[in-house]
Amino acid sequence: MIRTVIITLCFPLITLAVAAAQDGATPPVSHALMPVPKSITFGTGRLPVQAGFAAAVTSSSDPRLLAGLDRALRRLERRTGLEFPRGLAASAAAATLVIECGGPGGAVPGLEQDEAYTLAIDATRATLKAATTVGVLRGFETLLQLVAGDRTGYYLPAVTVDDAPRFPWRGLLIDVGRHFMPVEVIKRNLDGMAAVKLNVLHLHLTEDQGFRIESTAFPKLHQMGSDGQFFTQEQIRDLVVYAADRGIRVVPEFDMPGHVTSWLVGHPELASAPGPYQIERRWGVFDAAFDPTREEVYTFLDTFYGEMAGLFPDVYMHIGGDENNGKHWNANPAIKSFMASHQLADAHALQAYFNQRLTKILTKYGKRMVGWDEILHPDLPKTAVVQSWRGQASLADSARHGYAGILSNGYYIDLGYKTTDHYLVDPLPVGHGLTPEEAARVLGGEACMWAEWVTPDTIDSRIWPRTAAIAERFWSPATVRDVNDMYRRLASVSIQLENLGLRHESMTPVMLRRMAGTHAIAPLAVLAAAVEPVKGYLRGRVTPATQQTPLTKLVDAARPDSAVALMLRLGVDQLVADAPRFRVQRQELIGAFQQFRDIRPAIDRLADQAPVLQEATGLAADLAGMGVLGLEALSYLTSGVAPAADWRDRALSQIQQAAKSRADVELAIIPAMRTLVTAAAEVGRLAALGPRAWVAQVETLSAAKPPAPKK
Amino acid sequence: MIRTVIITLCFPLITLAVAAAQDGATPPVSHALMPVPKSITFGTGRLPVQAGFAAAVTSSSDPRLLAGLDRALRRLERRTGLEFPRGLAASAAAATLVIECGGPGGAVPGLEQDEAYTLAIDATRATLKAATTVGVLRGFETLLQLVAGDRTGYYLPAVTVDDAPRFPWRGLLIDVGRHFMPVEVIKRNLDGMAAVKLNVLHLHLTEDQGFRIESTAFPKLHQMGSDGQFFTQEQIRDLVVYAADRGIRVVPEFDMPGHVTSWLVGHPELASAPGPYQIERRWGVFDAAFDPTREEVYTFLDTFYGEMAGLFPDVYMHIGGDENNGKHWNANPAIKSFMASHQLADAHALQAYFNQRLTKILTKYGKRMVGWDEILHPDLPKTAVVQSWRGQASLADSARHGYAGILSNGYYIDLGYKTTDHYLVDPLPVGHGLTPEEAARVLGGEACMWAEWVTPDTIDSRIWPRTAAIAERFWSPATVRDVNDMYRRLASVSIQLENLGLRHESMTPVMLRRMAGTHAIAPLAVLAAAVEPVKGYLRGRVTPATQQTPLTKLVDAARPDSAVALMLRLGVDQLVADAPRFRVQRQELIGAFQQFRDIRPAIDRLADQAPVLQEATGLAADLAGMGVLGLEALSYLTSGVAPAADWRDRALSQIQQAAKSRADVELAIIPAMRTLVTAAAEVGRLAALGPRAWVAQVETLSAAKPPAPKK
Repeated sequence: MIRTVIITLCFPLITLAVAAAQDGATPPVSHALMPVPKSITFGTGRLPVQAGFAAAVTSSSDPRLLAGLDRALRRLERRTGLEFPRGLAASAAAATLVIECGGPGGAVPGLEQDEAYTLAIDATRATLKAATTVGVLRGFETLLQLVAGDRTGYYLPAVTVDDAPRFPWRGLLIDVGRHFMPVEVIKRNLDGMAAVKLNVLHLHLTEDQGFRIESTAFPKLHQMGSDGQFFTQEQIRDLVVYAADRGIRVVPEFDMPGHVTSWLVGHPELASAPGPYQIERRWGVFDAAFDPTREEVYTFLDTFYGEMAGLFPDVYMHIGGDENNGKHWNANPAIKSFMASHQLADAHALQAYFNQRLTKILTKYGKRMVGWDEILHPDLPKTAVVQSWRGQASLADSARHGYAGILSNGYYIDLGYKTTDHYLVDPLPVGHGLTPEEAARVLGGEACMWAEWVTPDTIDSRIWPRTAAIAERFWSPATVRDVNDMYRRLASVSIQLENLGLRHESMTPVMLRRMAGTHAIAPLAVLAAAVEPVKGYLRGRVTPATQQTPLTKLVDAARPDSAVALMLRLGVDQLVADAPRFRVQRQELIGAFQQFRDIRPAIDRLADQAPVLQEATGLAADLAGMGVLGLEALSYLTSGVAPAADWRDRALSQIQQAAKSRADVELAIIPAMRTLVTAAAEVGRLAALGPRAWVAQVETLSAAKPPAPKK
Repeated sequence: MIRTVIITLCFPLITLAVAAAQDGATPPVSHALMPVPKSITFGTGRLPVQAGFAAAVTSSSDPRLLAGLDRALRRLERRTGLEFPRGLAASAAAATLVIECGGPGGAVPGLEQDEAYTLAIDATRATLKAATTVGVLRGFETLLQLVAGDRTGYYLPAVTVDDAPRFPWRGLLIDVGRHFMPVEVIKRNLDGMAAVKLNVLHLHLTEDQGFRIESTAFPKLHQMGSDGQFFTQEQIRDLVVYAADRGIRVVPEFDMPGHVTSWLVGHPELASAPGPYQIERRWGVFDAAFDPTREEVYTFLDTFYGEMAGLFPDVYMHIGGDENNGKHWNANPAIKSFMASHQLADAHALQAYFNQRLTKILTKYGKRMVGWDEILHPDLPKTAVVQSWRGQASLADSARHGYAGILSNGYYIDLGYKTTDHYLVDPLPVGHGLTPEEAARVLGGEACMWAEWVTPDTIDSRIWPRTAAIAERFWSPATVRDVNDMYRRLASVSIQLENLGLRHESMTPVMLRRMAGTHAIAPLAVLAAAVEPVKGYLRGRVTPATQQTPLTKLVDAARPDSAVALMLRLGVDQLVADAPRFRVQRQELIGAFQQFRDIRPAIDRLADQAPVLQEATGLAADLAGMGVLGLEALSYLTSGVAPAADWRDRALSQIQQAAKSRADVELAIIPAMRTLVTAAAEVGRLAALGPRAWVAQVETLSAAKPPAPKK
């Protein structure tokens, strides 16, 4: 029974470590709000949250507001274990929470919706005011994040909040094409989005690997292109309402003219090359494409978009447009001849022609086009919105040419980068050089959950909690960029997200038990918490995989941005800085390194009975080595005794060895190990340097920038 | 970081402890099958499970069989991390698994379906034969439970299985009336049912507290009686197909003439007393009842049952019939007058009249009636099936009177009893005294998940894994009754159930984090694992609750049949018996007691910040006391030094004090503590007794029998 499970302990430790790391500057009054509001001022006193908690609406209210209020109160009940009276309070005077709302603000949320609100809490009551219902909904989330407790019970601190978003388009793309995600996965993610004030669900509904929506006009699309995994139209209608109830728009994407293999299984007549076609199982960029030279294709798309326009009330409709390689076009004599006769110089020009035709169709149905960078072309109508996977420069370029745009480069959450790597990316970075008018065309951004490597079991842990930090980038003032404070608040919001039904945390032990069976998972949990999936596009390089490969191995149980690695990094940084308050943290470091040191036999035993874990034994051996090294380094640092002359080089070489990825994962503690060893090797020089200078010097050793994402 | 989390470690410990507990008798070849097959013979050798694993069907096959095969292979892939070729093998010779099936066996499963199968595995292949598709599905589950692994990889042991169920009706009742359970909850429980070969989902669809199915004929039923929480007819159709695909019948229950408050909200004209009615929020037995004297009621029910008969293809339809207290009937002069004019002596006679009328309606729609004990009456048609909440004697009585019956007394899983309390209850106990013809009328039984105290978050942990042991009672030979071996296998099946999506294990930390926020949950997990919800009907006695009370407190995170308590009980028993191999176990006992001893400050600190945990501080103090006491007892037993003369009485008194329930939970380790203290107090006599005699003597001290359940 004497085993340690790091995994469940990480968030508290981060909170501790981050708090300790905020030395120097006087911190603001601590709160755990994410996104940080535009303006927040804490007062004195508090409003108790007790069994009599009741709300009043002192304005007209609509069903969406009342349903949102009910959800908020039920969440508060579940959090506190208190039972509140049902129904609204008889009067504002009798209410704990008073709501004033200007009006519903439209049947469905739109890009121009007013999401601003103010929240004032004193010892008597909380007052929430907004021009629209969606503004009130945003205020509820802030209110719920403010709840705290102590010996006297639960309470809301006295505070004045004046809040509104920085960008109007704050999205999450979920790719249900490559791996399908059932309705309940989408719904719990909509709940999570609402909690962090995101307002666009971008559903990437069609891909080479799957066509995921029922079409009554062309049933062969979903019947032959989805393996039976698609949303019915009733489910879509339900999802759109569910999202609208939370102030979230649903923007569907039907990716074309490339990425269409799954369409062509049932409708090969749309293709540029002869069929038959099968659902694509591999990952990558493929040649299949619609034939943009034939009128039947536009007739088909006219009917199709007409049908889809009836399902999705949002004004924007995404036509993809990315990664069409033109091969099938250039190989088709009829298409080549069409291009010649229409003076279309190349595939890009032909795609621009296709997009112009699509624009006409979309316009007919009252829709505006959204597409990826590739749709940019002198002939692209100015009503189109460009979603940039290429980057801020490309986005700024669009804005200069008069196009509205949203940024996704830097927010590809499928690539396994750390939260900070996304958090510090700004759609409008300092020095963007745009005029105010141009800058206003940058509407915001979207986190992108591409689905090569996720299943319903793992998608939450790839989206959350990191996307909460991205949501803050889109909502909060540009100046909110304190990484340590972000991590502190993220630990708190992560648990709120879990309470909404998200499983980013709770699925890890489930997946470990799946592998380990009835054997104790504690050592495996230590290993899984110390590794991260490989970054960027490295996954699948060594062991190729398809849509049908089970995603139930160590890499799938591991999560991006290891909390243990963060704890080690903060702990090591503080150790090196030798702040007196670090004494406690060092004990935690010793504990972690001891766990690492002792992990190997347990993992070896597990792998003997669970062959799926055989790939983990080498990692466990290396992690054990890091544990020994860490303890050595700590002893040098603590004693002030310098190590032998060659210790540093041997140690760094061992770390270098351990840094190589295997089983599609990498040890996440490598940067902290490098810092620690470098510091320990120069323990003699330590006293001569000021702590901050020393930290800066040591830290320059590590931190390779992530490569630019590709779509 | 140096904290211990018992909770994730319990199953391995149980496996260890149970294995150690099976001293004496030579154990059979160990397997983890649940339910145990009718006959199983292990051979020598093994069939490797490798990437080339492929199946062939050497008979006609139906879509249900092929879909079941696909699910089984995908589960095997996820378990092993291997990717198998898609599609069937070209021939039996090329297949790892060969399936021979007699035929589909009916469009939907029925009571008479043939579920028998044989499974033969040798080093070359596995051969699965059955007369029907459902038999094949049952065989798949056995096959999956046989998969094992070692250094050479995954494999199936050579084995011959000849299997068929003991009872044809093996059910799980889910009460969606008191707390609604969404479709995904039902589906994952259907998956769990199929895994342990249950074959009836009894959906308790209507209650005083909720009407949970869409009625197009009478939409006010679900619109006004459900708080918006009901199954649409499309969802019901989908569920019925989902169940049938797994060889599971769906038997709907529309409880009447009592338990109908929610119907009367929209249709007060059906009532025996004047309205208006509101959805009932309290728990208990209420007076509301249909008026069985008015023809309009039967006209209504005729239409209603006609509509429902179109949704549920099963021949059986449950009309409830329980707990109608007759108060509204006796208070209504018109009803009294009707009774007098029809020579109906009392409410029971009037209910029998009502049931006769219902029988006619059901017969019209091709349905046979099922009802609770109360429907028994000389006038009850012999086609009716009686579900007994009163017990085996009542069930036997029904059988003697010619009625088929199913047992639910003893299987009320909402009451928090230990797995063994249910496992050892037999629908046909030894000495039942029925003739073979009468005994054949005992069709089986149903576990009952009444829903006063469960939500979608907690229902899985109340159903599983205990219901797997009940499923074994219904399927396996009556002689399979080894409790320790049941627990050993249950640990294994529990993880398989989790892999199907059930959350009985993984929701515990989620619920603890909801209470603790960002604070470490490790100490809270220790406390939660050491307590159990109060048993029987004690919950809500101290703190009254309604349908609207949040179920998110310690009692809801705690689970029935604490694995820690089981581990302690087994460990203490072995310690007392002083088996040499117990040395390892004692270390685990010491570890557990140390954790208990040290728990108090951490829980106190948590409660200071999470007021919902203030109710846990007293429990933590008592658990800490048990830890100290346990360590003392261990030291006496180990050293052979007798304690002071009054130690035993003081210790037992302290245990008695700690045994009292609080916060709707009780410390689950109390019986083991009593055994341990009693043994330690008599350490001097220990050597004089044989170990088995000693264990028996000590064990008689504890174990209060659970009270008989009431409906």
